Amino acid sequence: MTISLNCPIPQRDGERIELAHGSGGLLTHRLIEEIFRPAFAQSCDDLTHDGAVLGVPDGQIAFTTDSYVVQPLFFPGGDIGSLAVNGAVNDLAMCGARPLWLSAGFVIEEGFGIGDLQRIVHSMGAAAKAAGVRLVTGDTKVVERGKGDGLYINTSGIGTVVAPAPVNPAQVRPGDRIIVSGDLGRHGMAVMAAREDLGLEPPIVSDCAPVSEQVLRLIEADIPLHCLRDLTRGGLATALVEIADTAGVAMQIEQGDIPISPPVRGACEILGLDPLYVANEGRFAALVPPEAAVLALSILREFDISAAIVGRVEETGLPGSVALRTLGGSYALDLLACEQLPRIC
Amino acid sequence: MTISLNCPIPQRDGERIELAHGSGGLLTHRLIEEIFRPAFAQSCDDLTHDGAVLGVPDGQIAFTTDSYVVQPLFFPGGDIGSLAVNGAVNDLAMCGARPLWLSAGFVIEEGFGIGDLQRIVHSMGAAAKAAGVRLVTGDTKVVERGKGDGLYINTSGIGTVVAPAPVNPAQVRPGDRIIVSGDLGRHGMAVMAAREDLGLEPPIVSDCAPVSEQVLRLIEADIPLHCLRDLTRGGLATALVEIADTAGVAMQIEQGDIPISPPVRGACEILGLDPLYVANEGRFAALVPPEAAVLALSILREFDISAAIVGRVEETGLPGSVALRTLGGSYALDLLACEQLPRIC
Repeated sequence: MTISLNCPIPQRDGERIELAHGSGGLLTHRLIEEIFRPAFAQSCDDLTHDGAVLGVPDGQIAFTTDSYVVQPLFFPGGDIGSLAVNGAVNDLAMCGARPLWLSAGFVIEEGFGIGDLQRIVHSMGAAAKAAGVRLVTGDTKVVERGKGDGLYINTSGIGTVVAPAPVNPAQVRPGDRIIVSGDLGRHGMAVMAAREDLGLEPPIVSDCAPVSEQVLRLIEADIPLHCLRDLTRGGLATALVEIADTAGVAMQIEQGDIPISPPVRGACEILGLDPLYVANEGRFAALVPPEAAVLALSILREFDISAAIVGRVEETGLPGSVALRTLGGSYALDLLACEQLPRIC
Repeated sequence: MTISLNCPIPQRDGERIELAHGSGGLLTHRLIEEIFRPAFAQSCDDLTHDGAVLGVPDGQIAFTTDSYVVQPLFFPGGDIGSLAVNGAVNDLAMCGARPLWLSAGFVIEEGFGIGDLQRIVHSMGAAAKAAGVRLVTGDTKVVERGKGDGLYINTSGIGTVVAPAPVNPAQVRPGDRIIVSGDLGRHGMAVMAAREDLGLEPPIVSDCAPVSEQVLRLIEADIPLHCLRDLTRGGLATALVEIADTAGVAMQIEQGDIPISPPVRGACEILGLDPLYVANEGRFAALVPPEAAVLALSILREFDISAAIVGRVEETGLPGSVALRTLGGSYALDLLACEQLPRIC
């Protein structure tokens, strides 16, 4: 094994992960020193130690976890690494928190290419830098060939709550407007097209991105954020049904107002998928009082011109229901009953 | 599917995990409501929401993560669930912190028995209760049959630092005594014996347990804890070599003082393993100044009579070296160069 610590991305494409890389011994140390540390350069503290010690101000922190099992590992617009970082960042943002620290846990299948691992952890480092968070603690396990699927990553995250009031479904009120931060369905369809090799030209590019900056701007502008929810697995429909159910309110959204790009709409039609249920990784819904909706929308449009007000919380109606109004009538949305897109994140 | 929410451990042995249990939709919700929530009863907040909001005092927090891929999932003295909880608890304790909150991320293989999942999450709930921590956020992913190995669990944890001074290798001083909190090698050999079906009678029982209470008692007694390290993958030898290397000191340990039970010693001999490198899951090493060593030992012996002072940090010697003194001479210990016990945690 040739080691070149000074080269930021040495070529390690011929090398493969062995079981001993997960032993906690010499090869684990080498993996940390040669692959993880250079990638996480400015964002990591002490990856060999099993815990990070972090200074916090008095107040509230947000804490989140997600495991990532996306297939394929690389897709237009991102990879499992950037997805894992942005996913944690966005979960924290949805708590009204400023994301600060992430952990990274790797479960790697024996035989996985060290070059691919290197590209993925560099992508994590870049995503962390872009989102202003630090990777402060980590763990690596290796499982035998055939007992995994290349690479699974868990990220957990901590942020400090900066929203001045609670952000959760219990704050939702009749009249609240439902705003989505941009066009829907791109992450799910980008992964699906890459997996099925649909050969779309140009390819659909995932929306995978941090949304914390948008949320912090809304908070700075004193927008009362009643509820925030990232539109990941299950998409907009599942997110709204969950919120309506927890809040005990009825919602209505307008099909014509929901931003979906023509390529996503086309790919969904080919595959028989409903874009309202397709996963996003850089999109969220914000529920805000009607008097704050226009300002909130204008802030979100500075980040993405496709942001839109798509519906509202009703004064009356069946608690827990979400109605989709279309030209042809009104339909009740439901939770996803079966898995339409496995391993999308 | 028959649902019985009032029964704490309904019999679900015939049911199996489907891909849709990881969809984020209806079956994910059922899994959370019927399996996770009852098991985590008093220890969970709101498992459907992607993040937990937690009040912290001004000061320092410790943050840790680990993924668990142990095989078999059940072994004498524990299972992957109690292991995952105790592992996070112990990593936090090693930072001189009081463990408070855990996350749990599940990667489940399609076809996994819901009855087994239920037993494992009940074990997590019981372990959390025993260690005084709460499971506050979680995530579930399902991968296709053949793409996992039953179940992988990631736990991350947060605690508040209560040690009055930093606890890390930089604090280690010549003369410090090295204390181990109990007999070594039981976890690794219990898992190994279960995996290889060695048929030991009585079986070796894992030491899997929280060590936070011991650490808090040492802190309350004003023991200056220069460094703490749990003796997991790689065992005592790897832990000490890492600390000696980071601290730039030489250490010496006495073979005759290291507590290893006869059954563990015997099983190691049969399998050709060195017990100093075998993983523990409820054992740690504490490095303390010589004048505090006797009091520290007496406190640790209240928890486990086999706790022992096993060595010291030398005034001289090669920095980064750990010498094992035996009747036959002195040997330098090294990091584990290959994987002797894969998937022990």
